[in-house]
Amino acid sequence: MSTFGSHFRVTTYGESHCLSVGCIVDGCPPGMALTEDDIQPQMTRRRPGQSAITTPRDEKDRVEIQSGTEFGITLGTPIGLKVMNENQRKQDYGNKTMDLYPRPSHADWTYLEKYGVKASSGGGRSSARETIGRVAAGAIAEKYLREAYGVEIVAFTASIGNEYLFPPSREHPTSATNPEFLQLVNAIDRKTVDSFLPVRCPHGETSKRMEQLVADFRDKHDSIGGTVTCVIRNAPSGLGEPCFDKLEATLAHAMLSIPATKGFEIGSGFGGCQVPGSIHNDAFIKATPVEAGVNGLHSKVRRPKLTTKTNNSGGVQGGISNGAPIYFTVAFKPPATIGQAQQTATYEEQDGTLEAKGRHDPCVVPRAVPIVEAMAALVIMDAVLAQHARTAARSLLPPLKGVVPVHQQ
Amino acid sequence: MSTFGSHFRVTTYGESHCLSVGCIVDGCPPGMALTEDDIQPQMTRRRPGQSAITTPRDEKDRVEIQSGTEFGITLGTPIGLKVMNENQRKQDYGNKTMDLYPRPSHADWTYLEKYGVKASSGGGRSSARETIGRVAAGAIAEKYLREAYGVEIVAFTASIGNEYLFPPSREHPTSATNPEFLQLVNAIDRKTVDSFLPVRCPHGETSKRMEQLVADFRDKHDSIGGTVTCVIRNAPSGLGEPCFDKLEATLAHAMLSIPATKGFEIGSGFGGCQVPGSIHNDAFIKATPVEAGVNGLHSKVRRPKLTTKTNNSGGVQGGISNGAPIYFTVAFKPPATIGQAQQTATYEEQDGTLEAKGRHDPCVVPRAVPIVEAMAALVIMDAVLAQHARTAARSLLPPLKGVVPVHQQ
Amino acid sequence: MSTFGSHFRVTTYGESHCLSVGCIVDGCPPGMALTEDDIQPQMTRRRPGQSAITTPRDEKDRVEIQSGTEFGITLGTPIGLKVMNENQRKQDYGNKTMDLYPRPSHADWTYLEKYGVKASSGGGRSSARETIGRVAAGAIAEKYLREAYGVEIVAFTASIGNEYLFPPSREHPTSATNPEFLQLVNAIDRKTVDSFLPVRCPHGETSKRMEQLVADFRDKHDSIGGTVTCVIRNAPSGLGEPCFDKLEATLAHAMLSIPATKGFEIGSGFGGCQVPGSIHNDAFIKATPVEAGVNGLHSKVRRPKLTTKTNNSGGVQGGISNGAPIYFTVAFKPPATIGQAQQTATYEEQDGTLEAKGRHDPCVVPRAVPIVEAMAALVIMDAVLAQHARTAARSLLPPLKGVVPVHQQ
Amino acid sequence: MSTFGSHFRVTTYGESHCLSVGCIVDGCPPGMALTEDDIQPQMTRRRPGQSAITTPRDEKDRVEIQSGTEFGITLGTPIGLKVMNENQRKQDYGNKTMDLYPRPSHADWTYLEKYGVKASSGGGRSSARETIGRVAAGAIAEKYLREAYGVEIVAFTASIGNEYLFPPSREHPTSATNPEFLQLVNAIDRKTVDSFLPVRCPHGETSKRMEQLVADFRDKHDSIGGTVTCVIRNAPSGLGEPCFDKLEATLAHAMLSIPATKGFEIGSGFGGCQVPGSIHNDAFIKATPVEAGVNGLHSKVRRPKLTTKTNNSGGVQGGISNGAPIYFTVAFKPPATIGQAQQTATYEEQDGTLEAKGRHDPCVVPRAVPIVEAMAALVIMDAVLAQHARTAARSLLPPLKGVVPVHQQ
Repeated sequence: MSTFGSHFRVTTYGESHCLSVGCIVDGCPPGMALTEDDIQPQMTRRRPGQSAITTPRDEKDRVEIQSGTEFGITLGTPIGLKVMNENQRKQDYGNKTMDLYPRPSHADWTYLEKYGVKASSGGGRSSARETIGRVAAGAIAEKYLREAYGVEIVAFTASIGNEYLFPPSREHPTSATNPEFLQLVNAIDRKTVDSFLPVRCPHGETSKRMEQLVADFRDKHDSIGGTVTCVIRNAPSGLGEPCFDKLEATLAHAMLSIPATKGFEIGSGFGGCQVPGSIHNDAFIKATPVEAGVNGLHSKVRRPKLTTKTNNSGGVQGGISNGAPIYFTVAFKPPATIGQAQQTATYEEQDGTLEAKGRHDPCVVPRAVPIVEAMAALVIMDAVLAQHARTAARSLLPPLKGVVPVHQQ
Repeated sequence: MSTFGSHFRVTTYGESHCLSVGCIVDGCPPGMALTEDDIQPQMTRRRPGQSAITTPRDEKDRVEIQSGTEFGITLGTPIGLKVMNENQRKQDYGNKTMDLYPRPSHADWTYLEKYGVKASSGGGRSSARETIGRVAAGAIAEKYLREAYGVEIVAFTASIGNEYLFPPSREHPTSATNPEFLQLVNAIDRKTVDSFLPVRCPHGETSKRMEQLVADFRDKHDSIGGTVTCVIRNAPSGLGEPCFDKLEATLAHAMLSIPATKGFEIGSGFGGCQVPGSIHNDAFIKATPVEAGVNGLHSKVRRPKLTTKTNNSGGVQGGISNGAPIYFTVAFKPPATIGQAQQTATYEEQDGTLEAKGRHDPCVVPRAVPIVEAMAALVIMDAVLAQHARTAARSLLPPLKGVVPVHQQ
Repeated sequence: MSTFGSHFRVTTYGESHCLSVGCIVDGCPPGMALTEDDIQPQMTRRRPGQSAITTPRDEKDRVEIQSGTEFGITLGTPIGLKVMNENQRKQDYGNKTMDLYPRPSHADWTYLEKYGVKASSGGGRSSARETIGRVAAGAIAEKYLREAYGVEIVAFTASIGNEYLFPPSREHPTSATNPEFLQLVNAIDRKTVDSFLPVRCPHGETSKRMEQLVADFRDKHDSIGGTVTCVIRNAPSGLGEPCFDKLEATLAHAMLSIPATKGFEIGSGFGGCQVPGSIHNDAFIKATPVEAGVNGLHSKVRRPKLTTKTNNSGGVQGGISNGAPIYFTVAFKPPATIGQAQQTATYEEQDGTLEAKGRHDPCVVPRAVPIVEAMAALVIMDAVLAQHARTAARSLLPPLKGVVPVHQQ
Repeated sequence: MSTFGSHFRVTTYGESHCLSVGCIVDGCPPGMALTEDDIQPQMTRRRPGQSAITTPRDEKDRVEIQSGTEFGITLGTPIGLKVMNENQRKQDYGNKTMDLYPRPSHADWTYLEKYGVKASSGGGRSSARETIGRVAAGAIAEKYLREAYGVEIVAFTASIGNEYLFPPSREHPTSATNPEFLQLVNAIDRKTVDSFLPVRCPHGETSKRMEQLVADFRDKHDSIGGTVTCVIRNAPSGLGEPCFDKLEATLAHAMLSIPATKGFEIGSGFGGCQVPGSIHNDAFIKATPVEAGVNGLHSKVRRPKLTTKTNNSGGVQGGISNGAPIYFTVAFKPPATIGQAQQTATYEEQDGTLEAKGRHDPCVVPRAVPIVEAMAALVIMDAVLAQHARTAARSLLPPLKGVVPVHQQ
């Protein structure tokens, strides 16, 4: 279904060519300051038309809060969010060729197999416009996490094609073991990321090479994929539910639900399979106490007393966050819409040539950055509320009398 | 929560050292022949103690159906499944050292942070015994899928450490573009996989190298990770729900919920980010009709009329299955339990040395094979029932009169 | 949360005084003809301002489909529905007295206890305007049920104050045993019900007495409650899930979620507690076969071969529909907003007098009729899709070979 | 599905004639003392064979905790609960007559319509034994609620046939307006209720009359229904979710999911429809402060500062608890199994006579008392955890600066 989350629940609607797209956010804590201004910045970061290497489709994507706030304060009731579809250009997708051919590696064919109805836009809900609701909802989650815990969520481009920010090497089959990577992950912020527009890879030289690579693919009427790495700092420990809803499982679910994704890895990920356990294990050390109030951290928030020397786990052990930075990487395939003719078959099983004309990005990775951040925020927010329910319940129980080893919270 | 699936819903219980482990399977179609004999084979494949390179913990793991069947036929009501915990050996994990130290990269610390109660087994629910319920439930799902659709689900070891069945190369940064890989994926069966015990990698030479590698790590009291590739053949088209519950998203969720996993990729995956769209796109071709009855395929099952020349998508486009083989790879980290002393900190934040004594696998990958298959079966089964509800509902509507292009199912 | 249903899932948003109210309907079968014209009639029946005895608040309540259809056909994707809040008159509820006092038997106090934020409208989401989304969604469900099964859902006023359509008697402590009642339930339609506006009680004399009773209460600046009976005809057998989601349980849930309800009874209900089992039991008889196509019944729909002589069960046995008419009654309390001064306490715990000035209905029962119908449609629709998933799954299994008694579907 | 609750989630399994019945309780707060001794008392109160007027089926119904606790303390992980089916007597229900006839007003026919498989026990999951899991789970919820909030849940028989504890009268069409009833509801405890065994109606004379009435029906081989009233005291304010999951809606859902129920009313209920709003409205008064620690009330629990003079609302306004006693009444139909011959039809649509031989209760009402209490506990527990998540989330937000009227929690 079009719903994400159990406690902070987001339900989206909207195709490429309908009246509006939007969502309902249910479960937002009451009493939080919230206006459109809290949401719009991420909407704008996601917006097409930001540079020469993204799609020229120009839309304002202004979000409008329908309900759930009054005088700029959340009521705790569902927040309706709406963005008009202003620039629809139905003709591009509704042309005769499009009607004959399912576009290769698009959702036209599978939507038809699923629903038995052919939308004018092909696989309507698989459109990138569907992600608008996610980004809007994510911005609300993020605001709460920042105000309550000082949570920071920052994503950036880690690779495009074979250009990597941290190329895998014999020494570091995974960047998790690379101190430079860990340093970046501990410090990077959005402002820095956006200073490397259009590609959003926070390293000058690499960024230039990536930009050139994308331009080359654009000029060849071709497309290319890449990866986005995201870090979540200051998330509380104890997030994630054994067994099926481990934090990495819900993060993977969230990330693979973004259009065009093909992979997810957390911590040491795929490369970590090559690292011996004796090196891979994250030994514990005493954590440096964080003063309440620093980084907006609320005084009621308890931080764990231990942390880990290394962070191959990516902040999650046994499916539960340990308080260290949570980081993961998402793979995006090359966009299916290309400017070249393609040999393929019609809906009526006839061989033929499809020549695409729609607008498109040669590489979705830079625009995916705020979408990855939004989905990360939704996952963490949901896990935080779940854990709140547990610790609040526990806090009302009489203390246990020493018969079992118990850690007092 | 400890529940997986919406339509075919599995709820599990049980830690390492309690009375029994098990699950309740709700939503199994009524009228299907089912006894313990349908479930036990996969339980046995998952069972520890299968060779010199797996954990010596010896348990019978006999599953017992509590409810939901009568005279060997499913009633459609919840199926209770139970496996006794026979060989508990509490002392191994309950020793004094264990009480002082959270084990590095285990769940001891995070479980304590989450629940505030220290289980004698550390992170109890993160135990490998928790997967018993999954495998049992998966076997039921798999039986249905096989009987109704001729679905075949086969997983195998794709890499251990830096030994790969298909090493990534400049020509094939992803095995998805490698014809040999596709051939294997189209043909591999469980019997063949098990003929390569103990490592379950279906290639003689590679298999030998992997076995040696694991033995080396065992001898060094160390551990090593690896990857499992799984293919699902004959799944119907139309599975997966836009937007948040795309088939790859629920598969990723399922796989990352297995203990010790760090990554998931579908189709071309991470390597596919390096492949240009013009090559990556899967062009359509007319599908060879499958006769009803072949491979147990039910006569009422409609197969799609188109298929794809290549399969970089891994059988899923826009989050929905297209009828081609669905394949994906899962990364397993090196086991955290190693036989070496580790410098780490106590629960009381004191530096010290932990010397582990518990039983353990130097590499979990071979035993993970049936667990990956089970989780895949649960995902596909749930998606099949969701799609059934839709197509059955649609079939009762009056036919549409040519105003819109409509594909008749 | 603000979500209803598992398969046909409705999520609503909107308070009394926000920009718009609306909902997202997820899970609507694809390929169904649907425009605003299918929805508006029930919206209009729910609309205030229909007569001298309902609230004078005048709103157009025009529904606008945002997404999920194209060229008047459902795509199978989420349907966004929106109704503007045109006539808000914030001042009525935002006055000084209102700010001081929680209104007795309103939700002002409990919303504040729950959320800790005081909405300008008091208990914003408890407003009758919240029901707009339900009615819109219900109209879509109803259309499907009518097209696929010829389902008819009709509600009517059964009592207001102590004026009853079928007063309980020694002979008939429940109207379920009264043949006249059963006759009405088997035949009543909406047109007839609306011919008895403003009270919607389908009996001339009783209707007049009720109208007078309501007028009396209005003149006394007081209010009065009543009951609505609803019948669902032609629902298929087999709906409802043991154990927790019995059909009567989800109907009760749905009905008690309507503002101002205090009770629910199905079939013989509370009065049936006085009827001996020997009379109360519904004996079986052979059902008269229904020809496919009659009443729009689809040819693929199988009707049960048995029915019951009596219908004290109200169409549901063991939580599952048996194919007979499903009927139930819902109790609505007297509206809390009255035109009299009330002795009560302020938010600051001071005794005082509250004089209400808001617009109000002296009796909500007549306007509740379409809301009850809408919620009934949502429950049945959800149950139909759940059962579709089951029977479709079953239909692909090989037939069982006579070892157990099996009824062939 | 066989699952109840979102935060405190109970999943049950088991038919009348299978190996065992039981459930998994997920979401129990960690760190609570819990052994079988906390659960068994309610199991025993539910158990058949308690007196001459209940079924002679004798079972021990010993509950056994499978998982989720260690050394008598909850771990926070799923609690597996199991009760063996010891006394199955399959022959009674498996006889030839039973095979031919669906029993009138039983679930035999509807289960067959739903599942297409005939269980040997007819509608297996509709058996009273299915309620064992509910009672066990309810006992756990209740323990938490008592320890954390001093919550007391007490149910009692309010009527059998036409014998009422508080017969409706012209003065009091609903007992809600009767001070004697309110006094009882404020003071009644389980010990008192059980001192009136076998009928559990806490009034000597009425109790005698009821006992005689049931004996009369038993002697006539007939059966009779009745009602159970339940009160929940000391539940915190703020429970219940607008709009669809109002507290009364989830209570109604829970109660109507108990076998043999036909109605639910909360507060003034059906009789309240006859009470004018000016009398029905519950005016506010300053609440008497409750000292922390009294009645086991935890010091962290905030009690509301206002309460209501009357309690026609039954403790719930706008779907949310206000801190006053929550009370409701549930209607149970006469049991369908009677000792008389019944004219009915066979599965093959032939008229005939069914003579029942199974064991049965002439009236289920007294045994239903602990089941009603259990379901009430499950509803309140789930709502408490949901509200905990909200208030804990809110508590971390910066305080709002006087722009809107805000109640500080």
